[in-house]
Amino acid sequence: MFDSGVGGLTVLHECLVSLPEEDFVYLGDTALFPYGDKDTAWLRERIGAISALLLEGGAKLLVIACNTATSIGDDVAREVAAEHGVEVVPVVEPQAEIAAAITDNGRIGVLATPNTVESGAYRRALEAQGRALEVTEVEAPDLAPFIQQGSPFDESTMEMARSYCAPLKRAKVDTLILGCTHYPLVAPMLQRILGRDIRLVSGGHAVAAAVQRSLERRGLAREADGEGDYRFLCTGEVDSFRDLGTRFLQMPLGEIEQVALHT
Amino acid sequence: MFDSGVGGLTVLHECLVSLPEEDFVYLGDTALFPYGDKDTAWLRERIGAISALLLEGGAKLLVIACNTATSIGDDVAREVAAEHGVEVVPVVEPQAEIAAAITDNGRIGVLATPNTVESGAYRRALEAQGRALEVTEVEAPDLAPFIQQGSPFDESTMEMARSYCAPLKRAKVDTLILGCTHYPLVAPMLQRILGRDIRLVSGGHAVAAAVQRSLERRGLAREADGEGDYRFLCTGEVDSFRDLGTRFLQMPLGEIEQVALHT
Repeated sequence: MFDSGVGGLTVLHECLVSLPEEDFVYLGDTALFPYGDKDTAWLRERIGAISALLLEGGAKLLVIACNTATSIGDDVAREVAAEHGVEVVPVVEPQAEIAAAITDNGRIGVLATPNTVESGAYRRALEAQGRALEVTEVEAPDLAPFIQQGSPFDESTMEMARSYCAPLKRAKVDTLILGCTHYPLVAPMLQRILGRDIRLVSGGHAVAAAVQRSLERRGLAREADGEGDYRFLCTGEVDSFRDLGTRFLQMPLGEIEQVALHT
Repeated sequence: MFDSGVGGLTVLHECLVSLPEEDFVYLGDTALFPYGDKDTAWLRERIGAISALLLEGGAKLLVIACNTATSIGDDVAREVAAEHGVEVVPVVEPQAEIAAAITDNGRIGVLATPNTVESGAYRRALEAQGRALEVTEVEAPDLAPFIQQGSPFDESTMEMARSYCAPLKRAKVDTLILGCTHYPLVAPMLQRILGRDIRLVSGGHAVAAAVQRSLERRGLAREADGEGDYRFLCTGEVDSFRDLGTRFLQMPLGEIEQVALHT
């Protein structure tokens, strides 16, 4: 599993809870965080190098726990993974599948960073579901930085969340895709603002379900008995990864190793 | 809603998410925290005084968001509430009801502080469900203090959780009552340790459902449209209530007022 930073740890969190028997290696490309403002060609090369590193380590499945990386280079990851005979679970498609399956009124909201909205990844993935859907996308430029900088539970975050939710309420969406891995930390706030009947679809829940399906389909699932291992690689500083990461993983981080990527 | 400290804020959290349209006042009797080591007669008087204060403030429902207070004095709270024609929702019974309703194999675990286990409150509430149940109670003397002291996500908490979960796994419980309002903060850890098929029943989820039923039955529910208010009273220091409380509420605390109780 990889991400540009710590946000993907909310995806790993759900996998650790739902698939406790499996082993996980998570790579946070924190030296390059955030991906949103980097050159695309270089990022695609980077995604290829990360995928190769994890697959050479023996991964039986590759998860892209990053919305930006998914929209920029899931094809690169798939290509590298195919050489190893391994499947890729990205963060966007599984959410689109679930959202399309559970919406009653066909009105789906997507809350995401401007980069993700502009990439059109969620819109395309939702259109591919073969069902008439009305999609309302809202760009939230400030929400992920606020959550990452450590004040996710204060009044200014709540106010910001209210303003981002206003167009979603007007559009009467009954299902909201959390289009950034940081957002699960404020999911209860969003639920309160939007009302209890709105269903939130986080990347974590969707990916954990997709990982389970993929492993079972290919006969790669481990017997559900006991706890697997998990460990971390990061390209930036280990200490800041640990400090920041704990809030996102909500479990002990244990072993973290700094790695260099030659790109 | 009241509690001896900040733990009950996990109950308020669920109510704010599930019942956003209602107004809440939460009293944390932080000057006396923890209740577990205080004289029972005095605590019963205290519970009566807190109940009177909240009901005189116009509460239409009274929630005891505290396991110790429920087992020591829910009858006192009910007496005071009856004078105001108001119902009481305690934290124990709603959990017992849900657990008895959702267990498949009839084996229910209760993880709680030694005081709560010794009170027998959960065991009695489960026996009152009119179904043959095998109840395994586990005393967790250190878990709530660890969570409150600020290191809920480190390896020592995980180790502690593993040791408390061992007898629950041996007893093959399929449903676990989180018998302390602090435990929802480590619910994902417990879920990972116990496995995805075990159902966790937190006080927050059970109380929020019970509050909704009570309000609807009595025609007191507010129309589900828009956000209500919430505010806080505490008997101890305001600043420490805010610092500690934010982690438990996971929403902004806003207005906090210090109050004196004459007991």
